[in-house]
Amino acid sequence: MNYNFSAKVSGLQASAIREILKFTAFPDVISFAAGNPAPEAFPAKEIAKISAELVENEPILALQYSITEGYTPLRDTLKTMMSKKNCFSPDNDELIITSGAQQGIELSCKSFCNEGDTLIAEAPSFIGSLNAFRSYNVNLVGVEMEDDGIVIDKLEQTLKANPNTKIIYVIPNFQNPTGRTMSFEKRKAVYDLACKYDVMILEDNPYGDLRFEGEDIPSIKSLDTQGRVIYVGSFSKVLAPGLRVGYVSAPKEVIQKIVVCKQVADVHTNIWAQVVCDRFIKENDFDAHIRYLRGIYRKKYNLMRDCIEANFSKKITFSTPQGGLFVWGTLPSDCDMTGFCKKAVADYKVAVVPGNAFLIKESDPTTSFRLNYSTPTDEQIIKGCEMLGKLSKDMFD
Amino acid sequence: MNYNFSAKVSGLQASAIREILKFTAFPDVISFAAGNPAPEAFPAKEIAKISAELVENEPILALQYSITEGYTPLRDTLKTMMSKKNCFSPDNDELIITSGAQQGIELSCKSFCNEGDTLIAEAPSFIGSLNAFRSYNVNLVGVEMEDDGIVIDKLEQTLKANPNTKIIYVIPNFQNPTGRTMSFEKRKAVYDLACKYDVMILEDNPYGDLRFEGEDIPSIKSLDTQGRVIYVGSFSKVLAPGLRVGYVSAPKEVIQKIVVCKQVADVHTNIWAQVVCDRFIKENDFDAHIRYLRGIYRKKYNLMRDCIEANFSKKITFSTPQGGLFVWGTLPSDCDMTGFCKKAVADYKVAVVPGNAFLIKESDPTTSFRLNYSTPTDEQIIKGCEMLGKLSKDMFD
Repeated sequence: MNYNFSAKVSGLQASAIREILKFTAFPDVISFAAGNPAPEAFPAKEIAKISAELVENEPILALQYSITEGYTPLRDTLKTMMSKKNCFSPDNDELIITSGAQQGIELSCKSFCNEGDTLIAEAPSFIGSLNAFRSYNVNLVGVEMEDDGIVIDKLEQTLKANPNTKIIYVIPNFQNPTGRTMSFEKRKAVYDLACKYDVMILEDNPYGDLRFEGEDIPSIKSLDTQGRVIYVGSFSKVLAPGLRVGYVSAPKEVIQKIVVCKQVADVHTNIWAQVVCDRFIKENDFDAHIRYLRGIYRKKYNLMRDCIEANFSKKITFSTPQGGLFVWGTLPSDCDMTGFCKKAVADYKVAVVPGNAFLIKESDPTTSFRLNYSTPTDEQIIKGCEMLGKLSKDMFD
Repeated sequence: MNYNFSAKVSGLQASAIREILKFTAFPDVISFAAGNPAPEAFPAKEIAKISAELVENEPILALQYSITEGYTPLRDTLKTMMSKKNCFSPDNDELIITSGAQQGIELSCKSFCNEGDTLIAEAPSFIGSLNAFRSYNVNLVGVEMEDDGIVIDKLEQTLKANPNTKIIYVIPNFQNPTGRTMSFEKRKAVYDLACKYDVMILEDNPYGDLRFEGEDIPSIKSLDTQGRVIYVGSFSKVLAPGLRVGYVSAPKEVIQKIVVCKQVADVHTNIWAQVVCDRFIKENDFDAHIRYLRGIYRKKYNLMRDCIEANFSKKITFSTPQGGLFVWGTLPSDCDMTGFCKKAVADYKVAVVPGNAFLIKESDPTTSFRLNYSTPTDEQIIKGCEMLGKLSKDMFD
């Protein structure tokens, strides 16, 4: 029969990355296409110990219904941590546990956007967020980026041109897919524009803890005096993504609305995972764990950077991430990026993600592509960069 | 500041039951208001063993990103189980794991309903589903029920009057809140009307396995030759609700759309919980476990039924559930149900849920209330019924 799907989801497609990731199931393909944390980054032993004690000694806690807002001890732990980073104000804010940051992003959009309302995102941006916004049929408008973040003039032009804008969505630290970090000046400018044009900011910070170079830059949330920033965090990159635990820190009234939306979405987040997160932080040296992770990603990034330097055609420029999981490569404007990505996986058995997957309109022109260094092994980074480098020289030099 | 929430969520309130449940946090209150499985129904030891082996021996499986459709072995297990119940057709259907049945219900609504489209539900019905539908700003229309299910004439009148109806939502087995079961004849009639008026059926079956009396009645899904039934199941009542694992069996094209919606909602369901569900079924005698659960609920229901019989004013009539977790009490039309529920919790320290919580419009008149027998202990059932019985005689005899 002919299904008459709702307008908001009828055009929605599975993430383009998923198509690429299918290739990565072949054992002979080296994947720079994923966004998974390094397997060695999981504190598996510590989690096994916490989990065993929890399920053995407190099975009802781990198995019974729980409250929508989240496991109270974990919320308290996060409120303390976020307060220290000025990402939570005890007087003005509340904090809810979500089923991954993805849920926090989706419910923020659902809470504020009617169909046709404008939502502004960096272009390119994280495909999971873009698709969440698309699933509410918003008018999704991209604003281009430069090395230090979104182009402020263009952001203001876009706000002027779209008086029905509800949300500006940004990933200020080690952005997915570009690896770029927004400067402090631009964070202030974005916040000032949000105030001037009376819109909310959705600040997505899944990678912020994974800084392996340079100094932390204050979050946009920390600048918020008016209550217009929704800050979304995640345990996916600092503990484990399979847990599906994230959180949202935002003004109380906003959290109240997100709580109601979450109640109808999944009642509450898996409670075992919430307790595991809380006890991991309490029973371990969390700062030391973060330092350990930073060491892993620093080493992997430096290796990939060196291999890129040694192998790739000099015509390709690369972003210089100070943290996170991704490097963004850009070909000269007359080069065939799609052909490069296709040949890479088909002939050279190395998967990268074509940049248009991250655009607001996938058909827009781009000559960029995304490389991930967190998932492959060192050997795969070396071998993969050799192969891609050879292809790049064959095609472009 | 003044938040301008989207039209679809601006009127959305937290579940009225939650207000009642606040009282149940007081240790001296006996709660017949919850909907939690009996704590003794959790196979805690078996789950602890499976969990310990999983996290210890296969940490990457338990902790890394997984696919949106769900853990493949669990999907295969469920496809086999659902095939045997004629709730899954290998030729026509697919099956996705969701974060509880709640997510399956919400995403079904999101997939099919534009704002203003009509969704028909039994009146009364499960508040979590009603609120999910409300959160998409559908035109939610209730059709009254009788002992053997929805009133078919009225369902057809409602379909005629609302040509923009997209979905009929029903809970055929041991309905929440009434405990009623839809007869086979009515299931066929509902399906025939769905075909006649070209609408989808959303069949929610969280309690079907908990039949403690009578014979199983075939699902509406099992009658589906056209591909218009979306069947939603759950592990919440047969294993543990804190896991947040449910599933949807539906025509392939519908599942494809739900997969895309789930991807933007929470990427995938907590993978630890999915593996636990799969291995519990494989490593244990699942049928024996279900028989054990049925025994628990049979005993608890019979005890409550006997205590109601012995204590309550004869003016109150009660539904006679053959399974599930709930009994539905109804006062004569001239009686003050709200006053009864308020006095019950305030003066007699027994919490029940006023029936209007489950109506399409909470302001509609009703003299019914819901009692739960799965959560309280035997002692609490005896004591609570004595107290409520005394109050009912004081107020109504």
